[in-house]
Amino acid sequence: MRLLFLGDVVGRAGRNVVAERLPALRERWALDVVVINGENAAGGFGITEAIYNDLLDAGCDAVTLGNHAFDQREALVFAERADRLVRPVNFPKGTPGRGAQLIEARDGARVLVVNVMGNVFMGTALDDPFRAIDAELEACPLGEAADAVVVDFHAEATSEKQAFGHFLDGRATLVVGTHTHTPTSDHRILSGGTAYMSDAGMCGDYDSVLGMKKDEPIQRFLRKLPSGRFEPAEGEGTLSGLAVEVDGRGLAARIAPVRIGGALSEARPDFWD
Amino acid sequence: MRLLFLGDVVGRAGRNVVAERLPALRERWALDVVVINGENAAGGFGITEAIYNDLLDAGCDAVTLGNHAFDQREALVFAERADRLVRPVNFPKGTPGRGAQLIEARDGARVLVVNVMGNVFMGTALDDPFRAIDAELEACPLGEAADAVVVDFHAEATSEKQAFGHFLDGRATLVVGTHTHTPTSDHRILSGGTAYMSDAGMCGDYDSVLGMKKDEPIQRFLRKLPSGRFEPAEGEGTLSGLAVEVDGRGLAARIAPVRIGGALSEARPDFWD
Amino acid sequence: MRLLFLGDVVGRAGRNVVAERLPALRERWALDVVVINGENAAGGFGITEAIYNDLLDAGCDAVTLGNHAFDQREALVFAERADRLVRPVNFPKGTPGRGAQLIEARDGARVLVVNVMGNVFMGTALDDPFRAIDAELEACPLGEAADAVVVDFHAEATSEKQAFGHFLDGRATLVVGTHTHTPTSDHRILSGGTAYMSDAGMCGDYDSVLGMKKDEPIQRFLRKLPSGRFEPAEGEGTLSGLAVEVDGRGLAARIAPVRIGGALSEARPDFWD
Amino acid sequence: MRLLFLGDVVGRAGRNVVAERLPALRERWALDVVVINGENAAGGFGITEAIYNDLLDAGCDAVTLGNHAFDQREALVFAERADRLVRPVNFPKGTPGRGAQLIEARDGARVLVVNVMGNVFMGTALDDPFRAIDAELEACPLGEAADAVVVDFHAEATSEKQAFGHFLDGRATLVVGTHTHTPTSDHRILSGGTAYMSDAGMCGDYDSVLGMKKDEPIQRFLRKLPSGRFEPAEGEGTLSGLAVEVDGRGLAARIAPVRIGGALSEARPDFWD
Ligand SMILES: [Fe+2]
Ligand SMILES: [Fe+2]
Ligand SMILES: [Fe+2]
Ligand SMILES: [Fe+2]
Ligand SMILES: [Fe+2]
Ligand SMILES: [Fe+2]
Ligand SMILES: [Fe+2]
Ligand SMILES: [Fe+2]
Repeated sequence: MRLLFLGDVVGRAGRNVVAERLPALRERWALDVVVINGENAAGGFGITEAIYNDLLDAGCDAVTLGNHAFDQREALVFAERADRLVRPVNFPKGTPGRGAQLIEARDGARVLVVNVMGNVFMGTALDDPFRAIDAELEACPLGEAADAVVVDFHAEATSEKQAFGHFLDGRATLVVGTHTHTPTSDHRILSGGTAYMSDAGMCGDYDSVLGMKKDEPIQRFLRKLPSGRFEPAEGEGTLSGLAVEVDGRGLAARIAPVRIGGALSEARPDFWD
Repeated sequence: MRLLFLGDVVGRAGRNVVAERLPALRERWALDVVVINGENAAGGFGITEAIYNDLLDAGCDAVTLGNHAFDQREALVFAERADRLVRPVNFPKGTPGRGAQLIEARDGARVLVVNVMGNVFMGTALDDPFRAIDAELEACPLGEAADAVVVDFHAEATSEKQAFGHFLDGRATLVVGTHTHTPTSDHRILSGGTAYMSDAGMCGDYDSVLGMKKDEPIQRFLRKLPSGRFEPAEGEGTLSGLAVEVDGRGLAARIAPVRIGGALSEARPDFWD
Repeated sequence: MRLLFLGDVVGRAGRNVVAERLPALRERWALDVVVINGENAAGGFGITEAIYNDLLDAGCDAVTLGNHAFDQREALVFAERADRLVRPVNFPKGTPGRGAQLIEARDGARVLVVNVMGNVFMGTALDDPFRAIDAELEACPLGEAADAVVVDFHAEATSEKQAFGHFLDGRATLVVGTHTHTPTSDHRILSGGTAYMSDAGMCGDYDSVLGMKKDEPIQRFLRKLPSGRFEPAEGEGTLSGLAVEVDGRGLAARIAPVRIGGALSEARPDFWD
Repeated sequence: MRLLFLGDVVGRAGRNVVAERLPALRERWALDVVVINGENAAGGFGITEAIYNDLLDAGCDAVTLGNHAFDQREALVFAERADRLVRPVNFPKGTPGRGAQLIEARDGARVLVVNVMGNVFMGTALDDPFRAIDAELEACPLGEAADAVVVDFHAEATSEKQAFGHFLDGRATLVVGTHTHTPTSDHRILSGGTAYMSDAGMCGDYDSVLGMKKDEPIQRFLRKLPSGRFEPAEGEGTLSGLAVEVDGRGLAARIAPVRIGGALSEARPDFWD
């Protein structure tokens, strides 16, 4: 099975690069399942139903979220009916939407997609992410109820991310971080067979600060006061994420970073390309 | 001029990979200047004078530090006489050691090495890193008092790092992040000519949590209590950092990540190798 | 029923003022139940079994804790057998000891003592304190399984403390904050009948920083580096906390601050004294 | 000299209690100087010029601020001309307004009013508050250029506040904390003669969370998501702060808490009342 994961889509630059690149890649690489983090797709803050549908139309099978999940208030409503939208599972009971979803890949495999939020440096303390993922995997274990398990761990601290990856090693197909909007190059297959990468990076304009125009963030660091609003940068976006070839047990056979377009050095999975 | 920067050396695994690899690389790549972050070289916490000297012996020209700078109390003493040891410049006045140092590269160029610490998610608030670096660059500007300027920005948040990079664009040869112990793949040359990478990664064993054995960090996340001490992981280390080819104005002509040995995918500068 | 709550006992100065004052107060005020926070009783960090027993001998019925609960490693063992020691209830399942305990007051009333830790500015994210206290009160409701409910909310932020107090209004006899080591004067009976005070203060030497000798904390703020260890201040301690007269429904009839001895202005419950 | 300091005025309830009570108190107690923290006077967030003028009209001599100083954008403009408005002195150079101001008390004394912001748990790192106050006191020392020095230390952590108080002991007339909106009862005269109180509390409706209506803050703690806006509570406000009798050297002769009206227990300076 061939899996593509793409990091936080930021604003129009991010949406454009997904819309322009994903359909062809889906075909060229014969992708079976595509998961995209969409928490910044709407002007940098949250997601609307229209944008969610656009992502699905571009060839995405599931959209994960994060701390910005409900920045667009309409998400509190459409999250209930959007069965391929997955918000952090460790939000309190009663939060709209779902934190895990079993979807069918093109090859018929059952893929569990889980979104979990970290607690270190995240501002808000959600339920313990380690206990939360344990509960999800007990309910739908890899190799039994699921043929593959994709965990988007939305977190800031590399310590929490790496601990999370090792904690799940052998129990998930992929544990990939999101939220820092910066791709890491520590992609690898852990000893138990789980593909791991601390952060998938963002789909957006990297000539920016986290995908937002540079001036306002720099001014805030200098002046300690807001001057204006944060707005998405509008230059050419980069598609950023990773490719995983999944073996028959639902573990990772191969992993490679994906960076296409825009300001970053290109990376493609040579085992597919 | 050819510049190599290597990220946080963690424990014996990190020291070993530097000692084993750097001398040959220095020769093979005809390096003019090598800067290494050594804040975790002594058992993961700080640096001793013996280790500092070992790093110089291996072919390092300057050792930068970070929040762990003085974990080994002897550093409060030897920092005064170690003229190639550079601790965060934005520590308070009166802190032992220096925050910036002008060193001579093999080719005779004057290279200003500055270490600055970020303030976001770092626990301790030091003097404003943006104002601090401004003062250093005013005192020793690129193209005047310095032929090259290397800024090690020791920080957690990618927002602060990217803002810092853009803030210095055109005024430094290289702005490279350290501290997360995880290499990023957003290395590039900014529009003003400054080489940038959010984090150089660590030199250490990546089958770990930030270079430390996995069990204790995972247990702390699960139990919210320490079970024992943090100890460096002892597997094969990876050399991690980046290579920069510097042009005649002291700006970056080329940049490439460096990852050699251990658990990560290999990366070498093809323009030198 | 007459209830006395005393805030964090810090080191010898705190232990001494409790040992010297509490026995006489217990008699003079005809106290039915005394609860003391003991998280800093052992040299400022945690509690030993010997100190726990001394507190009981002085006339204390239950000892609550906080983030320093297990600083003395022996507490991981004796917490299991110490049935009047109550650590934060929202530590993970499997943590030694108990987070709530039903004790018998001198007048025969059943008093539920719960210790809960806040999540704002506390460093570690425990289980949601609001959900945790809900579960405890559902299992042992005031007016049914318990004749009185004392909640020690160990937290930093006044926002979280005040929200917690109102959240429990009418469901607990007393919600009192601890952890800041500084008594507040916002003691009052909330509209639903619950006695509330944002912080009980500490039992210790107030000519200090949080009960510790002043020099080291001041130096750390100035130098951003440790100079030495934190040690408890050794001057005369103040007993600090509050007195609550409980009515027949287990709600508060009267509340008054208690500050006796040492550097603070004296306060006593005139309705008992 | 007779000095009254009042804590953060929150919304209309806070403004009303100041307007209704202060003129009579000013006369009855023959106050020489009144300082009020006004950072939450405008709907809980910042201050307008009209409100600033109302506070002066009610008998206030200087208005201090804090992290909410510029929430009302007009403050960036009128701070320049409002010579009795004092924002945190450790904002970066170039910030509108002033961080310290010498005002004349009714008795002719020159009173230096300084506002400083803490760095622990405050979100934004300003310049080191300890160094900043040192510079101010060097420029305008007590007993020389100033007959009295009032320091409003706007900070969250009691550790930082107490360290700050001791650091200034003997060099200021009063060091009083603001920001937690909760009055403390640790008011006292330190050994060097400086009056100290960790927090002055707020002028506002205490049947609230920090002066704001209870429901929204409680819901955010429960749901980890905003439901609506924060709005000031509208019940009867309490005037909260402290009274200091200043001796001929500019040090404190007497100190007493002030709490008048609303939900808190009343406190008045018996040495004046
Ligand atoms: Fe994001
Ligand atoms: Fe995020
Ligand atoms: Fe490090
Ligand atoms: Fe570090
Ligand atoms: Fe404590
Ligand atoms: Fe505590
Ligand atoms: Fe305030
Ligand atoms: Fe404030």
